[in-house]
Amino acid sequence: MRDGPHTHLHRHSAALPLQDGDLLAAIDLGSNSFHMVVARYVLGQLRIVDRLREMVRLAEGLDGQGRLTPAVRQRALACLSRFGQRLHDIPPQRVRAVATNTVRALAAPQAFLVPAETALGHAIEVISGREEARLIYLGVAHAQPPRPGQLRLVIDIGGGSTECIIGSGLDAVERESLQLGCVATTARFFGDGKLGRKRWKAALLEVGAQFQQFAGVYRHLGWQETLGASGTIKAVGEICAAMQLTKGAITAQALPQVRERLLDAGRIDAIALPALSAERRPIIAGGVLVLEAAFAALGLERMAVSKAALREGVLYDMLGRGGADDPRDASVQALMQRYGVDPVQAARVADTALQLFDRVCGDWQLDPDDRLMLAWAARLHELGLAIAHSQYQVHGAYVLQHSDIAGFSMQEQRVLAALVRTHRRGVPKAAFELLPERLLLPTRRKAALLRLAVLLHRSHETAALPEPRLHAHGDSLVLTLPRRWLEARPLLHADLAEEPEAFAALGIALRVETA
Amino acid sequence: MRDGPHTHLHRHSAALPLQDGDLLAAIDLGSNSFHMVVARYVLGQLRIVDRLREMVRLAEGLDGQGRLTPAVRQRALACLSRFGQRLHDIPPQRVRAVATNTVRALAAPQAFLVPAETALGHAIEVISGREEARLIYLGVAHAQPPRPGQLRLVIDIGGGSTECIIGSGLDAVERESLQLGCVATTARFFGDGKLGRKRWKAALLEVGAQFQQFAGVYRHLGWQETLGASGTIKAVGEICAAMQLTKGAITAQALPQVRERLLDAGRIDAIALPALSAERRPIIAGGVLVLEAAFAALGLERMAVSKAALREGVLYDMLGRGGADDPRDASVQALMQRYGVDPVQAARVADTALQLFDRVCGDWQLDPDDRLMLAWAARLHELGLAIAHSQYQVHGAYVLQHSDIAGFSMQEQRVLAALVRTHRRGVPKAAFELLPERLLLPTRRKAALLRLAVLLHRSHETAALPEPRLHAHGDSLVLTLPRRWLEARPLLHADLAEEPEAFAALGIALRVETA
Repeated sequence: MRDGPHTHLHRHSAALPLQDGDLLAAIDLGSNSFHMVVARYVLGQLRIVDRLREMVRLAEGLDGQGRLTPAVRQRALACLSRFGQRLHDIPPQRVRAVATNTVRALAAPQAFLVPAETALGHAIEVISGREEARLIYLGVAHAQPPRPGQLRLVIDIGGGSTECIIGSGLDAVERESLQLGCVATTARFFGDGKLGRKRWKAALLEVGAQFQQFAGVYRHLGWQETLGASGTIKAVGEICAAMQLTKGAITAQALPQVRERLLDAGRIDAIALPALSAERRPIIAGGVLVLEAAFAALGLERMAVSKAALREGVLYDMLGRGGADDPRDASVQALMQRYGVDPVQAARVADTALQLFDRVCGDWQLDPDDRLMLAWAARLHELGLAIAHSQYQVHGAYVLQHSDIAGFSMQEQRVLAALVRTHRRGVPKAAFELLPERLLLPTRRKAALLRLAVLLHRSHETAALPEPRLHAHGDSLVLTLPRRWLEARPLLHADLAEEPEAFAALGIALRVETA
Repeated sequence: MRDGPHTHLHRHSAALPLQDGDLLAAIDLGSNSFHMVVARYVLGQLRIVDRLREMVRLAEGLDGQGRLTPAVRQRALACLSRFGQRLHDIPPQRVRAVATNTVRALAAPQAFLVPAETALGHAIEVISGREEARLIYLGVAHAQPPRPGQLRLVIDIGGGSTECIIGSGLDAVERESLQLGCVATTARFFGDGKLGRKRWKAALLEVGAQFQQFAGVYRHLGWQETLGASGTIKAVGEICAAMQLTKGAITAQALPQVRERLLDAGRIDAIALPALSAERRPIIAGGVLVLEAAFAALGLERMAVSKAALREGVLYDMLGRGGADDPRDASVQALMQRYGVDPVQAARVADTALQLFDRVCGDWQLDPDDRLMLAWAARLHELGLAIAHSQYQVHGAYVLQHSDIAGFSMQEQRVLAALVRTHRRGVPKAAFELLPERLLLPTRRKAALLRLAVLLHRSHETAALPEPRLHAHGDSLVLTLPRRWLEARPLLHADLAEEPEAFAALGIALRVETA
């Protein structure tokens, strides 16, 4: 049925047809811990059947130059290889792995991701902080009873970043991601292992300033309940319970008592908080600090602890992807609206691009995900016109690369940006340089299809095109158009005559024939 | 009352209080001709009292590396110096000079603009092709009887570019600028001096393709009358009349007869068209070619010739600037809407920035134009948030630098971009590198004021700020805040403590005092 997990990589599938009993898995390469969660699809719902967690402390291995120390790198790869074994039973299209802050901070992420993907046997997507926030909210919200009309604040203090989200039902309304995690914060303020009240106060001010940036907006919006996710928050909740301050929640009264007991230790290796694991002790100080800053800035009284977090969000997002509720569809639609993209031309180009795709996807080994990406790029290819006509392909690519686009991983945004960047005019080498190696070939091929679709519709003719004939064979592509139809379109003829040069930059030999 | 025109440069004033009898002047540094028009403000209207035109053929002097040949450069400067003499009687705030396509194409525009501004005695603004289109339409529309509810097509075939505009009343609805002018087109297709029918046909196809890009949209929109501006179109109209084909208009019947007579000559220097001046003969072939392509692509039947063009548009635009109808206000408003800028925070920051401005504008020699630019930058400083929170100052600057923004010159857009780029975080040297030397100091000073205003409002507090006290003395700036007020805001205090470093990059020594 399938190759071994290490022979080649699988991306998750576009449409996810699920049957009762099917297994799905989500992997989260966090800055502190790596998590894996396996769920079974039962009666239209997901039932968690397995959780794995290893405290890899990836963030600890990040040196000042954005490289990973060899020991930590090895630790991470060994963990992924163990996770990969557990995934043996699960078809690749039902597995999705995401990496967050520390991988975002790597100077050369591919140097880690390529062996990491090999170890796991699956592609790993890097997601932005705000996308992480959206997925965390999705995971937490699914684990809560629905409260129609109510707003919910969710905070996740990770190893490398902290996410704060206000949401309603299953949708995030406000999403923020701060460069503040328990690992880096501990290292920054207590790197010498000493804990002191004066230093704590100064650190609190500095960390608090980060929350202040959005605290006004959040407080203005308001919320009815507060939930915390992440290992740090779970640990503090357990400490509160063990200290008999609460029954497991974190409150504005309990938190200072935890902090005082922490500071009483004087040194990190002397911390003796009840219910705190030895493995979390080295990083709890930074976690409590960020938590206290959040309580102060947002005026929190009580935070309940959620067991669900990012990985559960990734699971639920997988269910939506490729289906009628794919969050990426809504994001593309929102971008088209904001930038005033002409929907008629966008639909014409997308239809033709998909027709061409269907002709060659077999020969070119393009999968349903590629088809989705091509369609979205086609719908967005004119986005840059909102900035200026001149060089609009560059402006569109800029927006797609740098925007927070809900539902898309950073690699997916880069693929969209590359397709839009190269849909007309010259194809610069730099257009593809941010893509991982494994995506190069399929992206160049999709770029070729988008170029042809745009070209065929350049005149904005409303009449239907003749059925395009397209044949791919390795790196050569033959487009056949009806002779009389083409002869009646001298401009298209002239345009097509110039295309082989641009196609050469895509590594594809284009020939246009008439019949 | 004022210094001699060459001692220092004046930018046009923000608000233009006009009295009956006042003179205004607009100068247009075109790729073929330089024009100056002088008008008298009489009973609320402009009456043209003088026109100067010199066929400088700036485009002819452009070499392949984006440099001007010394002879052409000298010709241009001599012309501007003559224009400058005519401007002696006119106060500088009532003079506006714009440069178009050829100056846009220079690799180092400042190397020409600095001596050009000295020769003219006035600042010269470089405008984008689409802004040129807007101004051409404004000039042409003002010279026509109003036809409520009707649409009008205006075409201007310049030396270096061709503008096509559909407008209604005084407002441009669609604006296009093509890199097609009579000078470059003649050089490109008939550079060897020979004219031939086969070559004409091929050239027509290539030039026509440029019009095809928007012809569909234009024809769909439609128009009721067609007007042509520019020397080329005026000349062809005169030829049509002299050949007794029309009474001065250009028609779809007449144009091929002009073209045939042109091609009959076989060589450019043998062209013998009636009413054609010797000075226009070397460039008429490219002009007729572009015109014929426009007639074909847009399906034109008849084009009337307008005497008014870009320079008149610049005059009328000057009347609007700084007043209640400043087109730049509408553009800033439109950008705020498109990018969803929070208008409350934008207004708070703008108010404070202007208060600070009013404290120091005397010491810092900032003028009413600087005040306008600062207010617009304040209103737009959060624009990049629509793309992403991370690095939003970079995204905002990207949009402001690259967008078509009606009413702004390219330099003005660069000033806005520099102010938004530097309103928070570090101040990179590159932020100001695209600005002309004369704008460096005032832009850095405005950047300093915007930074302070943004900082004072960083908490999004709704309460009014205490009256800020600010003193400038050369490159040092002292901000004084009430001691107790500041003590109650430790975050602001911490932020302010870090500002002197960023200010040093602006060349300003900042001191914060309490009282």
